[in-house]
Amino acid sequence: MIVGGGFGGLACARGLAGKPVDVVLIDRRDYHQFTPLLYQVASALLTAPDIAYPFRAAFRNTRNVSFIHASVTRVDLEHRMVHTRDGGSVAYDCLVLATGSENNYFGSPALAANTLSMKTLPQAQRLRNHVLACLDRAIQTADADERRSWPTFVVIGGGPAGVEFTSALTELLKLVLGREYPELDPGSTRLVLVEGMDRILPPFPAWLGRYADRVLRRRGVEVLTGTLVQQATSDGVLLSNGQQIATRTIVWSAGVRATALAETEQASRTRAGRLVTDAHMRLAGQREVFAVGDLAAVTINGTELPMLSPPAMQEGRHVARTILADTRGETPRKPFRYRDRGTMAVIGRNAAVASIGRLHLTGLVGWIAWLVVHLYYLIGFRNRAVVLVKWAWNYLRKDRPIRMITRIDADPLVDEPAQGSQVSE
Amino acid sequence: MIVGGGFGGLACARGLAGKPVDVVLIDRRDYHQFTPLLYQVASALLTAPDIAYPFRAAFRNTRNVSFIHASVTRVDLEHRMVHTRDGGSVAYDCLVLATGSENNYFGSPALAANTLSMKTLPQAQRLRNHVLACLDRAIQTADADERRSWPTFVVIGGGPAGVEFTSALTELLKLVLGREYPELDPGSTRLVLVEGMDRILPPFPAWLGRYADRVLRRRGVEVLTGTLVQQATSDGVLLSNGQQIATRTIVWSAGVRATALAETEQASRTRAGRLVTDAHMRLAGQREVFAVGDLAAVTINGTELPMLSPPAMQEGRHVARTILADTRGETPRKPFRYRDRGTMAVIGRNAAVASIGRLHLTGLVGWIAWLVVHLYYLIGFRNRAVVLVKWAWNYLRKDRPIRMITRIDADPLVDEPAQGSQVSE
Repeated sequence: MIVGGGFGGLACARGLAGKPVDVVLIDRRDYHQFTPLLYQVASALLTAPDIAYPFRAAFRNTRNVSFIHASVTRVDLEHRMVHTRDGGSVAYDCLVLATGSENNYFGSPALAANTLSMKTLPQAQRLRNHVLACLDRAIQTADADERRSWPTFVVIGGGPAGVEFTSALTELLKLVLGREYPELDPGSTRLVLVEGMDRILPPFPAWLGRYADRVLRRRGVEVLTGTLVQQATSDGVLLSNGQQIATRTIVWSAGVRATALAETEQASRTRAGRLVTDAHMRLAGQREVFAVGDLAAVTINGTELPMLSPPAMQEGRHVARTILADTRGETPRKPFRYRDRGTMAVIGRNAAVASIGRLHLTGLVGWIAWLVVHLYYLIGFRNRAVVLVKWAWNYLRKDRPIRMITRIDADPLVDEPAQGSQVSE
Repeated sequence: MIVGGGFGGLACARGLAGKPVDVVLIDRRDYHQFTPLLYQVASALLTAPDIAYPFRAAFRNTRNVSFIHASVTRVDLEHRMVHTRDGGSVAYDCLVLATGSENNYFGSPALAANTLSMKTLPQAQRLRNHVLACLDRAIQTADADERRSWPTFVVIGGGPAGVEFTSALTELLKLVLGREYPELDPGSTRLVLVEGMDRILPPFPAWLGRYADRVLRRRGVEVLTGTLVQQATSDGVLLSNGQQIATRTIVWSAGVRATALAETEQASRTRAGRLVTDAHMRLAGQREVFAVGDLAAVTINGTELPMLSPPAMQEGRHVARTILADTRGETPRKPFRYRDRGTMAVIGRNAAVASIGRLHLTGLVGWIAWLVVHLYYLIGFRNRAVVLVKWAWNYLRKDRPIRMITRIDADPLVDEPAQGSQVSE
């Protein structure tokens, strides 16, 4: 039983596909979302289905993997049962927990309430709607102060996600504003990127972070490093440098923590809420319970692996191999070893930073490397083809075709919780 | 001032583009939706942006047309003002009303509450979510009776929209069910099409309706003609033939009426709520107020034109010509004449019916004609290219890639009313 079909859970399920085990994958969504491209949905470049792939399609030709579309509310390790929101329960022999992470607001309800997020597709699409609605409001507002606040966008967090969204937003505004919002002065928009550390892109070597900083500034972004958010309200943000910015859009990309999982409280957790595991991603004292991905704290050579998709995928595959060795009565030969294949972030048209071992790429070369890697990992041939065509089209035409405010009417059968947690009630 | 950017309003705005008049187009959505393909969004074939086009993009290179994204709540003909939901108001010299139609439940709140609709993109996407959620529920339900009710789908209304959705739904179920829902017996699905008249597709010649009837029955649809809905609840429907069907999905496609428009009550309305207009689509006694599309009752040779896109577009263009003649001080030479270019409906893979003057097409030939015409009228080169590629892909692969239950988180700035009316409060 695999709980959660993100990168870790999906990699584990694929590692077990076609093997002599029965696999049940359970997720509160019926599709896998390609998290690294969420910012492109939030900036009107791609549509939701471009970066989503239905689980049932992924395992269409795999007889030993079945999918349950349900929210897990409780895991009962003692009786080996998983309980779901609709009152159902499923028994397991072996459990892989892969419920991922959710935004960490460090205990501030005001931050949670007054910021927008892009951890999930519903959130990313809301962010797109919100940004476009702000432009509409800016046009329709007569008051000068209020008119300035609408096209002011503040992104909290200078990690890859925050940097990528910020640069995508500068392009959206540059490409669309002058041509399609003639009532609005293009100079009236303001983008602020706030990072608590002393430079942006902390996972990258320092000079790559400085390069990204220069590129963003050249594109008009105010980059504030060494700065924290003190207060966030519905119409502004107060920063630790004393600056008060009137804005209707504060994007939160500054911290995540592992999802809470009721009834696994007996497991040790790190400060970020990750479950402590051994060298085979087993929970302490639980031979048949594994944790992978953002949920699991996996420490290699004294360093905890970051909450990113590459460790999650490698952990998922390793757990699949361990489970298969268990069923054959073998001892898995080697503990988990992480192969660091590098980190990448797009910082605009023709520019990206990539850090792959000793190889550091910037500019157009980094951008092309980013394109190839992201297309490769995007699941499903159709999605790859569609996304490639759309990227090419948007690149050549300098267009953002999805710049529309869309809604989906609510349905009583579709009652996914609004917040990020797979297991929160 | 043009209120409403459907086929009629958009055609009028395009007719005035680049001409010596100032045009303001106002709509509660920021995109034009291609209504004839909504059923493909509802049946997991296309995504919402495939059949939507932002108004700002449509008039990007047109200096004399500007767009306001707002809901019109009141039209004040006396003071020549249009009032919007957000408290704004805009003055006009000349007004074109093109607010379209909304579902007509003939005064039954139970019908309105317990049926699903596909007049708008939010509704069509909800319908897709709902159908897929029903399949999930069918799997997760142990009770045999309840298990039968989930994959039972009842479509009320055998006009082109109802027939097209029904046939698209049979294909979705046929293509997806066996392969991706192995827990569900493909024979357990049930599709019922209910039509009050004595045959389906009443706008078409009788033999085309009989042909469509045969095709649908061959695909397993129960076609009930001469049958009305007596009662609709959340778990079933009672028909006038005494049949009671346990279902969680009743799709309403049986009647529309023109949208209500406060303060234009002084204008005469037909039984379907359409505004009575003269030969130039002017409201009686209102030289500078026009109505086009579903909202306007235009009678040609004693027959009222149907609520379809071709009359709306031709009326919109005629009104544009009339307004331009007015500004030049000319009398428009000719009253409006409608050119009937025919009607079409898809009834499945390789099969459509088309009635174009004396020419009647069925089967593959009708289907190809349908494809060409719908691609031609789809706005925007990109949309055409993307939709063509997706159709080809889905045709060859027999796939339905958008079969996922998606949500968009609510945003306070995006408060479009759930119901169809542009002007209802």
